[in-house]
Amino acid sequence: MAIPLLNCDMGESFGNWSIGLDADVMPYVDCANIACGYHASDPHVMRKTVKLAVQHGVKIGAHPGYPDLMGFGRRSLACSPAEVEDMMLYQIGALAGICQAEGTALSYVKPHGAMYNDMAANLALLEGAMRAVKAFDARLPLMVMATANPEPHRQLAEKMGVTLWFETFADRAYEATGHLASRRLPGAVHHDQATIVAQAVALAKGKALTARDGSALQLPCDTLCVHGDNPESVAAVRAIREAFTALESA
Amino acid sequence: MAIPLLNCDMGESFGNWSIGLDADVMPYVDCANIACGYHASDPHVMRKTVKLAVQHGVKIGAHPGYPDLMGFGRRSLACSPAEVEDMMLYQIGALAGICQAEGTALSYVKPHGAMYNDMAANLALLEGAMRAVKAFDARLPLMVMATANPEPHRQLAEKMGVTLWFETFADRAYEATGHLASRRLPGAVHHDQATIVAQAVALAKGKALTARDGSALQLPCDTLCVHGDNPESVAAVRAIREAFTALESA
Amino acid sequence: MAIPLLNCDMGESFGNWSIGLDADVMPYVDCANIACGYHASDPHVMRKTVKLAVQHGVKIGAHPGYPDLMGFGRRSLACSPAEVEDMMLYQIGALAGICQAEGTALSYVKPHGAMYNDMAANLALLEGAMRAVKAFDARLPLMVMATANPEPHRQLAEKMGVTLWFETFADRAYEATGHLASRRLPGAVHHDQATIVAQAVALAKGKALTARDGSALQLPCDTLCVHGDNPESVAAVRAIREAFTALESA
Amino acid sequence: MAIPLLNCDMGESFGNWSIGLDADVMPYVDCANIACGYHASDPHVMRKTVKLAVQHGVKIGAHPGYPDLMGFGRRSLACSPAEVEDMMLYQIGALAGICQAEGTALSYVKPHGAMYNDMAANLALLEGAMRAVKAFDARLPLMVMATANPEPHRQLAEKMGVTLWFETFADRAYEATGHLASRRLPGAVHHDQATIVAQAVALAKGKALTARDGSALQLPCDTLCVHGDNPESVAAVRAIREAFTALESA
Repeated sequence: MAIPLLNCDMGESFGNWSIGLDADVMPYVDCANIACGYHASDPHVMRKTVKLAVQHGVKIGAHPGYPDLMGFGRRSLACSPAEVEDMMLYQIGALAGICQAEGTALSYVKPHGAMYNDMAANLALLEGAMRAVKAFDARLPLMVMATANPEPHRQLAEKMGVTLWFETFADRAYEATGHLASRRLPGAVHHDQATIVAQAVALAKGKALTARDGSALQLPCDTLCVHGDNPESVAAVRAIREAFTALESA
Repeated sequence: MAIPLLNCDMGESFGNWSIGLDADVMPYVDCANIACGYHASDPHVMRKTVKLAVQHGVKIGAHPGYPDLMGFGRRSLACSPAEVEDMMLYQIGALAGICQAEGTALSYVKPHGAMYNDMAANLALLEGAMRAVKAFDARLPLMVMATANPEPHRQLAEKMGVTLWFETFADRAYEATGHLASRRLPGAVHHDQATIVAQAVALAKGKALTARDGSALQLPCDTLCVHGDNPESVAAVRAIREAFTALESA
Repeated sequence: MAIPLLNCDMGESFGNWSIGLDADVMPYVDCANIACGYHASDPHVMRKTVKLAVQHGVKIGAHPGYPDLMGFGRRSLACSPAEVEDMMLYQIGALAGICQAEGTALSYVKPHGAMYNDMAANLALLEGAMRAVKAFDARLPLMVMATANPEPHRQLAEKMGVTLWFETFADRAYEATGHLASRRLPGAVHHDQATIVAQAVALAKGKALTARDGSALQLPCDTLCVHGDNPESVAAVRAIREAFTALESA
Repeated sequence: MAIPLLNCDMGESFGNWSIGLDADVMPYVDCANIACGYHASDPHVMRKTVKLAVQHGVKIGAHPGYPDLMGFGRRSLACSPAEVEDMMLYQIGALAGICQAEGTALSYVKPHGAMYNDMAANLALLEGAMRAVKAFDARLPLMVMATANPEPHRQLAEKMGVTLWFETFADRAYEATGHLASRRLPGAVHHDQATIVAQAVALAKGKALTARDGSALQLPCDTLCVHGDNPESVAAVRAIREAFTALESA
């Protein structure tokens, strides 16, 4: 059993505006997805967050997004694959420069928000993202959404020579396709810590989840997305970490 | 005699807006100062410009500026040395990432516009800039304005472990201090090609210029700034290049 | 016969970057669509363009777009109707403030680029745009794309209490639906001045055009979009103006 | 005795980032200085804040700043007076448009942060700001910092035909010149509520304050700046309001 890496969005403050309990959640995660200035963060926030990750021995991932601070990168922007490729290279490089200044380096790339979702739905955009990663450093894994049918993404990655890390969620209900249930549906987001931990453990053990329609859903899971938005989500991360530690020593 | 490197600002287009005859001037220069998205340029323009430089065997320098697209980085922004340091790291990294994707690397750093001028006037900001270069890659020279008294900048660079490249101008009149005469003064900018070439050759030979007050002005000159804004400036660059080639073979 | 108003995008320069022959084309148009800072323009460009319009007695229209300078407002951004409404209000107000300072006022509103196209395809976004115009000043017409079936847009406008100005193009081929033929198709853009003028005159006379599939296409035409990008397009505008003047005196 | 108006910066959230207890402090102030999108705020935040002000019968002032979201408008940007004038017009108009949509109107203008401070130190910039207000609507007062020698500002305002509102602070220590003591000095910021209320009441009664050097400092006071950053500052505003109500009924 390969315990999935816990990854968390970090460094999403901007100038005078602060969000996220980065310092509280950093001790419990494996991977910090650090925003790169297009949808959130700025050079000072990025550097501070890189330092914090280094201090805790946490892997650093570039978390590039669409250039939309006002929309926090959550609104789809109709970019061409070549535009996505270059926007990703710019942001990956910017964070890599700050890592270099702090004596560390990037370990992976995870696109943010609407860019992440658009890539999951559009193979041409995904290929643009893969070209960016390949051109920058082919050894860096690209984090993508796990679905019930990961084969097309796996095949494209193999063709392109890029490694994928499939990502799942412990606090969200799934459709039978492996897509996240819309937040507008009742029960789409799990708030109960026991439910969240149980889903995380099932994913770690490679067990099938139960989709919204009652069907069994088998998802690849290299990494699990967790959140540091508030004390409740930090407590859930801590509980998942404890459950994973128990699994490892079992 | 060490012939000074010809450096030129490049990649200053932005999205739908184009400026600069980059393709015309690239064949005649040694160093392309490529804008990094804060005062001009975008990821697509940066990549295109890096490709053009690689094609012509021209050294690539990061050309970071203040975050002021509307003012083209020409308005001083009262940043702290730490802010300048982190803004530089971000922009240097972004361009370095694009260079890496194109199989090349940065050769130097030249701050842009108001940031360049502010550093020339303020040792604390210059030290911030040096910290950025040192932290990113101490082998990269930092381009700074040559003045009649370069010692304070030389001493700071030595203390910080950073290499300086002193830059002069062939098309501008100088004050006795080695600062550029204000553009508002008559005769501040040379338009006559023969005058421009003569000043370039004098600087290359290490001869003193004549300052506006008639005094002799000795300037260190590792590199000479040239311009690709319009056909006249490109023609002047070509003429300087021919004069330098003649000097080298003499 | 109501001669259509000639409208032209203006004030699309930004900071140090210039585009558009605004001063050349202004004498021949009725309506200047002035960019409002989100996809192009800045406060200084806006003020200069408003002055130029006032000098030539040209009506001023707010030309709001998505907040995407890098993409010139040409990339669709997945905004909610409420977001479009507020973004439009902000930009309309900004230009109205500059008009007020110059002793003039707005005459209409024409959304730009992807926002304009998205509104044509999505009634909920169009309703958001109408709410903005209604809330700001219900007397201002909203310019929308004329199609073969303008009824749904007319009915919505009537319900909302907003006046529409239907817009057509003289230099573009049309599909049978009244949508513009994709620029990627051969013959999609007319370059021949005689063809352009003939199409403009047909639209002014209320005659049907011939769509790409050979069918007759009847379009409502309150206003005709013209361009000031280069000397050729300015010459075409001048020719259309002369043709319209001849029509009026006929 | 004219009780000074209590004014407070509002609407400084931006997209996904929230700051300021606007809803908590709004009931106790007379004037809401609403950010206009250059240093903080966005169209949606502006509209929500205008609605809140209308609901509480609070006057709305435009709070324009330098275009520097990353620096929150607190870093001086070396703009010309004409640039400040046009940037102010743009932002004033944008907020005025949103006010118009909500059936209300602007009551005054207060520049933000570095722009406010730069105007206090530079008469040419102040004159640029006055030209903006005059051109937009000469009836709108312009809020400026009260100092020990307000005559130059008064004379310029009279010449320009603009009304000034002099602003003072209850929670800050003053230098003998009437400038605020640097925040780096001990005692520069009052944290004790009784001290804050006492200074507010003294200013309202037209009594001299005691400057840091012990001298008596007489300041004009049309309006008093208060803060809604946190529960402590809101409590202080409430206490000042109660003290002012007692003064009025005395």
